[in-house]
Amino acid sequence: MLFERVAVIGVGLIGGSFSLAIKEQKLCRHVVGAGRSAANLKIALGRGVIDAVAPDAAAAVRKADLVLVAAPVAQFEKIFLAIGPHLAPDCLVMDAGSTKRDVVAAARRGLGNRLARFVPAHPIAGAEHSGAAAANPGLFRDRRVVLTPLKQNRKRDVDAIAALWSSIGARVSRMTPAAHDKVFAAVSHLPHLLAYALVDDVSRRRNAAQLFGYAAGGFRDFTRIASSHPEMWRDICVANSDQLLKEVVRFSLALERLKKLLKKKDAAALERLFANARAARERWLNGKYG
Amino acid sequence: MLFERVAVIGVGLIGGSFSLAIKEQKLCRHVVGAGRSAANLKIALGRGVIDAVAPDAAAAVRKADLVLVAAPVAQFEKIFLAIGPHLAPDCLVMDAGSTKRDVVAAARRGLGNRLARFVPAHPIAGAEHSGAAAANPGLFRDRRVVLTPLKQNRKRDVDAIAALWSSIGARVSRMTPAAHDKVFAAVSHLPHLLAYALVDDVSRRRNAAQLFGYAAGGFRDFTRIASSHPEMWRDICVANSDQLLKEVVRFSLALERLKKLLKKKDAAALERLFANARAARERWLNGKYG
Repeated sequence: MLFERVAVIGVGLIGGSFSLAIKEQKLCRHVVGAGRSAANLKIALGRGVIDAVAPDAAAAVRKADLVLVAAPVAQFEKIFLAIGPHLAPDCLVMDAGSTKRDVVAAARRGLGNRLARFVPAHPIAGAEHSGAAAANPGLFRDRRVVLTPLKQNRKRDVDAIAALWSSIGARVSRMTPAAHDKVFAAVSHLPHLLAYALVDDVSRRRNAAQLFGYAAGGFRDFTRIASSHPEMWRDICVANSDQLLKEVVRFSLALERLKKLLKKKDAAALERLFANARAARERWLNGKYG
Repeated sequence: MLFERVAVIGVGLIGGSFSLAIKEQKLCRHVVGAGRSAANLKIALGRGVIDAVAPDAAAAVRKADLVLVAAPVAQFEKIFLAIGPHLAPDCLVMDAGSTKRDVVAAARRGLGNRLARFVPAHPIAGAEHSGAAAANPGLFRDRRVVLTPLKQNRKRDVDAIAALWSSIGARVSRMTPAAHDKVFAAVSHLPHLLAYALVDDVSRRRNAAQLFGYAAGGFRDFTRIASSHPEMWRDICVANSDQLLKEVVRFSLALERLKKLLKKKDAAALERLFANARAARERWLNGKYG
């Protein structure tokens, strides 16, 4: 056993799947969960996702040797402030937040002299299903996990966290919090915003029923991420608003160029753009982008 | 047998799947194919998608009692002009074009006194795979087919075409060409354009490899339609440029509103928008929009 007692704060899809995965790999003896929804914790306990429910985050982390914070990112400061005074000296802390600059700032404010034991992590394993009911031990298999270590971290703690994610199947890499937030603004946060915006707009039209009535498989896949958890994505968009705003501005400029091509009916330029996109996507699917 | 000899002009995913479906249902004796790619026609013949290859569209339609034109829509006028003089008096003609006003205009110019036997149709069954190699007889099962009949059409011809699509599993409805092009600009053409635009933009960045390296399942589904056939989508965007332009303008305004929310970090408004989109998408998936 690598860990005696693991505390998971926020037993949703990510926290619950992490718990199931480390149990399956026999990496821990006991997982205690805490969270805002008693109903969700009951499901988690019933499904064996966790072994016990703690009344709050502070109680959950007492005597824990590993803590995972897997709540919407706006909750982090409150959680760190609550657990900071109760962490055992050797307890490792990590998170599963989708943004990193704000999470690191919240840890600096909340964890006090325990900051050095906090290794920020972002498992790239979202889904449109949420909650403990959706948790599964294979969620992280072949998925990426990005660590954004602090200069205060000890190398051996970062390596231990990296090894832990690897042992449940993830591919671990490292970058700075700022680089992380830029990359994910472009390839994750922007697409989510666009998908939400399209479905919201269609739903508000007089002929919404007619429009949805003819929406097909392309629309379904394009908008799958518009079924993501609204609170989680609200927090991501607010936490990373500066980088996301840059991406929205950039995409708006791309749309301005497309408007010109449509006005001119520039068939050749449209086809070049479509062909370039298709080829790039093929290269990506074939692993040519690493 | 409903038809003795069916001619399919353009034996791609749609034309090939239609051929396989009517053969499976024993609705025709003989299918002859024509198209621009000899290699694709060879695959179609080899897979039994068609029974014979004609040297050109005019030759394919001779003695046919049903013709399906399933080429990119910019080809239609040339095809109609080529086949018009060779159609038997009783031959029914239909198409599978994704736009309808331009196809009807091309038919008026090309089909001459055979126009009344042309029933415009749009099967909503695209996929990111194309060509005869991707054809399958179940493609239209539970998919919608929109007919946009002409005032010249006889009722019994329109009913025959509707019954034909129904008999291979499709759900048939009718609207005007103008209404069709508006609806599909919103729920199909715009999402395709947005997906192409995002992949194109990411691919042109200095750090494209890094960005694609961290793109995950959400990005993959959001951009699936950016792997669609560039020529087909070039033609759709040009043919429906006026309606599509209106949709791009409308979506750009939605992005302007989102920019303001991000600048203000208006968490409550963002969450409302996301929650509304998620709820609307749930209603749609549950068939509440009919």
